[in-house]
Amino acid sequence: MVILGIDPGIATVGFGVIEAEGANMRYIRHGVITTAAGLRLALRLSQIYYDVLELLDTFKPDQISVEELFFNTNVTTGISVAHGRAAAILAGEERKIPMYEYTPLQVKSAVVGYGRAEKRQVQLMVQRLLKLESVPKPDDAADALAIAITHARNAASLMRGIGGAECSTI
Amino acid sequence: MVILGIDPGIATVGFGVIEAEGANMRYIRHGVITTAAGLRLALRLSQIYYDVLELLDTFKPDQISVEELFFNTNVTTGISVAHGRAAAILAGEERKIPMYEYTPLQVKSAVVGYGRAEKRQVQLMVQRLLKLESVPKPDDAADALAIAITHARNAASLMRGIGGAECSTI
Repeated sequence: MVILGIDPGIATVGFGVIEAEGANMRYIRHGVITTAAGLRLALRLSQIYYDVLELLDTFKPDQISVEELFFNTNVTTGISVAHGRAAAILAGEERKIPMYEYTPLQVKSAVVGYGRAEKRQVQLMVQRLLKLESVPKPDDAADALAIAITHARNAASLMRGIGGAECSTI
Repeated sequence: MVILGIDPGIATVGFGVIEAEGANMRYIRHGVITTAAGLRLALRLSQIYYDVLELLDTFKPDQISVEELFFNTNVTTGISVAHGRAAAILAGEERKIPMYEYTPLQVKSAVVGYGRAEKRQVQLMVQRLLKLESVPKPDDAADALAIAITHARNAASLMRGIGGAECSTI
């Protein structure tokens, strides 16, 4: 099963593609979609929408895993990120690909085994699990791989009937 | 010039269509797009996207006016509304229609002449300005007409060179 992980954003959308069979995972690709800060919001959303469609048509994922949003202090940024996330989700729905969402806590727990793990620990585990020569860059792409791994592990646990995280469909 | 006003949301998206020539305005249509609470987020977004496309193809607006988002206490609702707003904006961009956004304060100022006007005052002014027999229902549709009126008045002021509100393109 090919899984596309998405770390949503408006300026940078991270993506990570892996193949997972049970507990085995294989790295396929990672990267970012970027939109220029000077562009109108509508154009940035349109770019994200069409770039995600292109990713879907290129890598033909069976399932998509997207990070849930939490707002911290900067609500204005939060609104922009939510807009960008919706554009990515709309692209997934356009291709009728099942989508799942995970909280940052669930991602850290699934990848490192500890919900309060540091970003660096997550990145090192992503590198190790996918047998990469170095930590994947940039951070948003590494996060997207972690989100894909989270879904792979969760799906494997559910299949083996040993539980797994609460898995929300989008 | 035909203007489509949009009051963004996820469960209910208000819309209002008017024709404006200078200071003259004519009512065309108002209503709401609704999505069922039990549906997956991705399906709700897809419904909003395609329903807005249908509105655009039916009424062929020259410009779209959308309310800006402000988050209050309920951030979870805010994220959903932001997602719904992005779906509507993506539809507008798909048809390459110029879009403008106004804050609730700007809408109240433009329609009632007082930025802290009550919702009821706004609705009565919408009724009067568009020569309607009663206050338009539901509230989200009345809001959407107010947002369309705001853009009509602002565009007229700018054309006559007498200022007008700061007008942000989306």
